[in-house]
Amino acid sequence: MRASVLVRAGEIRLEERPVPQPKADEVLVQVRAVGVCGSDVHFYRDGHLGDWIVEEPLVLGHESGGVIVAVGSDVNASRIGERVSIEPQHPSTSSTETLRGDYNLDPHMEFYAVPGTDGAFQEYVTIQSHFAHALPDNVSDWAAAMLEPLSVAVATARKAGFQAGDRVLVTGAGPVGLAVAQVARASGATEIIVTDISEGRRESALRFGATRVLDPRSDAAEIDALGVDSFVDASGATPAIQSGIRALRAGGRAVLVGMGSGDIPLPLSTIQNKELTITGVFRYANTWPTAIALAASGRVDLDAMVTGTFPLDQTREALESTADPSTIKSVVEPFK
Amino acid sequence: MRASVLVRAGEIRLEERPVPQPKADEVLVQVRAVGVCGSDVHFYRDGHLGDWIVEEPLVLGHESGGVIVAVGSDVNASRIGERVSIEPQHPSTSSTETLRGDYNLDPHMEFYAVPGTDGAFQEYVTIQSHFAHALPDNVSDWAAAMLEPLSVAVATARKAGFQAGDRVLVTGAGPVGLAVAQVARASGATEIIVTDISEGRRESALRFGATRVLDPRSDAAEIDALGVDSFVDASGATPAIQSGIRALRAGGRAVLVGMGSGDIPLPLSTIQNKELTITGVFRYANTWPTAIALAASGRVDLDAMVTGTFPLDQTREALESTADPSTIKSVVEPFK
Amino acid sequence: MRASVLVRAGEIRLEERPVPQPKADEVLVQVRAVGVCGSDVHFYRDGHLGDWIVEEPLVLGHESGGVIVAVGSDVNASRIGERVSIEPQHPSTSSTETLRGDYNLDPHMEFYAVPGTDGAFQEYVTIQSHFAHALPDNVSDWAAAMLEPLSVAVATARKAGFQAGDRVLVTGAGPVGLAVAQVARASGATEIIVTDISEGRRESALRFGATRVLDPRSDAAEIDALGVDSFVDASGATPAIQSGIRALRAGGRAVLVGMGSGDIPLPLSTIQNKELTITGVFRYANTWPTAIALAASGRVDLDAMVTGTFPLDQTREALESTADPSTIKSVVEPFK
Amino acid sequence: MRASVLVRAGEIRLEERPVPQPKADEVLVQVRAVGVCGSDVHFYRDGHLGDWIVEEPLVLGHESGGVIVAVGSDVNASRIGERVSIEPQHPSTSSTETLRGDYNLDPHMEFYAVPGTDGAFQEYVTIQSHFAHALPDNVSDWAAAMLEPLSVAVATARKAGFQAGDRVLVTGAGPVGLAVAQVARASGATEIIVTDISEGRRESALRFGATRVLDPRSDAAEIDALGVDSFVDASGATPAIQSGIRALRAGGRAVLVGMGSGDIPLPLSTIQNKELTITGVFRYANTWPTAIALAASGRVDLDAMVTGTFPLDQTREALESTADPSTIKSVVEPFK
Repeated sequence: MRASVLVRAGEIRLEERPVPQPKADEVLVQVRAVGVCGSDVHFYRDGHLGDWIVEEPLVLGHESGGVIVAVGSDVNASRIGERVSIEPQHPSTSSTETLRGDYNLDPHMEFYAVPGTDGAFQEYVTIQSHFAHALPDNVSDWAAAMLEPLSVAVATARKAGFQAGDRVLVTGAGPVGLAVAQVARASGATEIIVTDISEGRRESALRFGATRVLDPRSDAAEIDALGVDSFVDASGATPAIQSGIRALRAGGRAVLVGMGSGDIPLPLSTIQNKELTITGVFRYANTWPTAIALAASGRVDLDAMVTGTFPLDQTREALESTADPSTIKSVVEPFK
Repeated sequence: MRASVLVRAGEIRLEERPVPQPKADEVLVQVRAVGVCGSDVHFYRDGHLGDWIVEEPLVLGHESGGVIVAVGSDVNASRIGERVSIEPQHPSTSSTETLRGDYNLDPHMEFYAVPGTDGAFQEYVTIQSHFAHALPDNVSDWAAAMLEPLSVAVATARKAGFQAGDRVLVTGAGPVGLAVAQVARASGATEIIVTDISEGRRESALRFGATRVLDPRSDAAEIDALGVDSFVDASGATPAIQSGIRALRAGGRAVLVGMGSGDIPLPLSTIQNKELTITGVFRYANTWPTAIALAASGRVDLDAMVTGTFPLDQTREALESTADPSTIKSVVEPFK
Repeated sequence: MRASVLVRAGEIRLEERPVPQPKADEVLVQVRAVGVCGSDVHFYRDGHLGDWIVEEPLVLGHESGGVIVAVGSDVNASRIGERVSIEPQHPSTSSTETLRGDYNLDPHMEFYAVPGTDGAFQEYVTIQSHFAHALPDNVSDWAAAMLEPLSVAVATARKAGFQAGDRVLVTGAGPVGLAVAQVARASGATEIIVTDISEGRRESALRFGATRVLDPRSDAAEIDALGVDSFVDASGATPAIQSGIRALRAGGRAVLVGMGSGDIPLPLSTIQNKELTITGVFRYANTWPTAIALAASGRVDLDAMVTGTFPLDQTREALESTADPSTIKSVVEPFK
Repeated sequence: MRASVLVRAGEIRLEERPVPQPKADEVLVQVRAVGVCGSDVHFYRDGHLGDWIVEEPLVLGHESGGVIVAVGSDVNASRIGERVSIEPQHPSTSSTETLRGDYNLDPHMEFYAVPGTDGAFQEYVTIQSHFAHALPDNVSDWAAAMLEPLSVAVATARKAGFQAGDRVLVTGAGPVGLAVAQVARASGATEIIVTDISEGRRESALRFGATRVLDPRSDAAEIDALGVDSFVDASGATPAIQSGIRALRAGGRAVLVGMGSGDIPLPLSTIQNKELTITGVFRYANTWPTAIALAASGRVDLDAMVTGTFPLDQTREALESTADPSTIKSVVEPFK
């Protein structure tokens, strides 16, 4: 099969590799669509992301869906032919974290496209059977891939405790921010304010759930005065996080999902005087059933977030397309 | 002013009474719309409801909205002219329950249309200023009244913990059941099964959020097998409650809001083996802002639930109209 | 090795059996102490418990501890010689319930001494490595076995939400009730009322955390008026559950852990008017670390709950000893 | 009566003032004991604390207890003679925050010893009847005053979610840190690590619940590696907060109660990768009943925290005594 391999920072090479064999509890999936995530772009550009360093050739891509074409010995063969979305993780089953339901925090995790584990920019991948989530017909291949960022948004929504009638601020209108806005809308939030420095992204936000968009440069005072029930940062930018903290009502919740590095200076007395709660999200656990229900019911629109598609031999172009501010989500289709 | 007074079971009399004077922290509201609740009908028919007995003439009606026409000495006069929905309760401020935010459970509560406190089937009523909730223009007078049953549904939704992607069962498609179905939909529930023995009510349910309706007499096995995340009983009927308990998935939640009397036989081993949670709702606290946001944003449709209107001198007819199964909500309009 | 086998209701036979071989992820434990649980007694007396029926010979006993004497191929051999307490369950790893942390609710569970899976009234048992919980030296072999009923109490405490300063009612002063009283005390409950019809058991309760004991036959009115924050039924008796429900304050929580059968008539209007929450406990998940910490720190006293010990060839006598009201916990010691 | 008045930074003057008259819903309390809080010392030394500035003469002191000697017209006269602990706040009753139970966050709050409202360093004070909490005989006058810092600790414990078996880190062994350690112990925490740079304070901590004390200067690596369930900062010091964040296990909770100013640099990727939760505490709501239960039951020892007493005319000395590192809590006794 063909695999698109990151051999070193900046260099993607299409290789021929043997089709992987599913282990006893795994299925083999023919990959139909793979979304490009910001973390893929980081690995491609820089050769590292946070503490992870690309030292061996690595297949990127962890937002993927496809069709089961073979199954391991412990898996019912009736699954062959099933369209699935891939939850791209393999936690250990006996860690404290996994046992209490936080398998995303398992310290022995193997995760697609993190150094040590190949991802999905290739024609076939294996995954444990229960992490190949069956899809109804009305969820497209694109959406199958997009269920991964939607899962991040679902995990975020649970941490934020979105409830009907809530007023929510989302800073950053990239794919995750837009997915969060959509889940906020689906959860009954009646005011969803999205900020981004890009006018194009602010306009996108209005199509994906935002009831109002603000420019953090010109609307700073207005943002500070919002008094929202919850705030989600999907930018990873320090000023955005700080403004979001100020924008919370007493007792409000901040959820930090946008990735960044270094220390964020946070105002101690504000956290205390308003008894704010601040937490972070790391991937997801137990989110796919919810994400599929939202997509299948039409409560969120994933297809409309796909702004470009690329064949497997243009994975590099797909990765570089994210630099274009009009890109929301680029998708690689290995069989198109 | 004119007041429609229950003088004894079955007898409503239109009386002339002095317009009440607002106390220092109260406002005087000209009543524009009052919904008829099942509890009003119980008092009217039977002269009692549970432990409450009508021993003195009583004005019924606790679902109401109108316009502020005068204010007490501690209230800003700028409120005069404001359209409001009335939260019809007056808890004490120093009880343990009120202090911890459960003011609906305050043992010293005075509540509209409960013996000892007159309700809203009259031209003018007083209420504490902060329980006269200001309305945006796009919330109608009818909706102002309907915010009360919607508040019951909001309180129910919070107890049930509705989340995006949930599968929810509602037994009973009366006004509260329909309001719960609407809030479930607004909260992102993607499957909302409503049961009722009345075909007309099942059809109504499909217009107010139900994704599927079932007849408890013919579809019992199907209901038992649902495996829903949460179940709300809005019927008060023992068989409905029992079927809903059976219909829950492991770890599911039941919220009992439909009023009934006597003991409900519940299956101990099912509650244990599936670690179910069962709770009840008694009115509401801190729900009006949420209810108004849902109505104003169009997430719920209250106007469509009004199936009949009556002038004040036909309060009796309004009360009796609820016997007609095609009635969802009857509204008395004192100034029409 | 020797195994004490229930061949049919009322008949225990000591058999020679091969020592079981640990699978790759298992350890082999030499059993030092096994507590007798009420469910063992049910199987012994009646040949069934709820829906479980003993159709094949079955080794009873699921409260056990011992020493690791061999390990499977995937387990570090350094564990040999470790003293452990056994969490006697083997859930599947891929069910919805397990993945979200409720592995006790896994529908594919294999559990010691439930028909289909042998228990611990034998010299050696196997268990998955992570469910053989290492013990500090100051936790005795008896306590190793008693950590199982303590885990039930820990699971109960979490459901009840015990907090410092709480007032708690426990109905039933058998081993689980006493363990719950001890955990309530360890959790900072400052008033712990325990009821039992047996005077001897009430006296035991005063040694294990109760601040006050009441007789449900003579003190019914006093129990009803308690207004406690939470109520745990450890009796399974309908009148006890009903009195506990009445004894709750507004907003209180009931946790039903005592096993029983059939339907419990519960008062609908009380559940609603006081917004009570009622839930059940089925075994436990993620409790052993907590239970070990409580035992090792001396916050609970498990050794003092052991009122009798028996060699393996007197398993029948151990089972029958529970009929004596002075028995709290009987322990079988296969190597004494 | 005599009142000890802060006339400007650094200057305390004993004045004769009229005894205050209780309003209708208030009681008049003869003050028996008043603790000195760090915030009192700040006002005394600097003339300000955070955004609060002493512009008019102000009576400090908000940790107080005494005896009811007169009551307002709406209060039952039987309360006269009652020994009480004073919850020194007067929130509005109609704000969103108060109505939902967070009356400590009420924006219209009047609070003892905050500019605009006199405190308790005087012979008599008034307080709303329900905030004068009746005491059992075994709670001393000193403890009556100390219930205020204990209430801060109770509020902190609720935010931290202390549970039996928890491992807890407390940074800072001043009065609040020690009270938190005591509540952690009362709540069943089995490992309570307290850090402080003062050896004397570390030794105190061992008497008030700490199972282990560490010096942040020499034991930094050990602190970082703790992996605790929850962390409470009672120091307000940036390095302490940062080390506590590092010391949390995945999914752990940090509660910031120590007052400080400015921004705390917090590590974004740690908060995300470990899905930590960080929150702050501002005073307390609904804590007195819990605090009294803990004190009366002997679960916490408040009297032992009092290291010095002063008559009213030595309020200055009381304030300055806090500079001595051997001081835990200084108490002013107006009638001794």
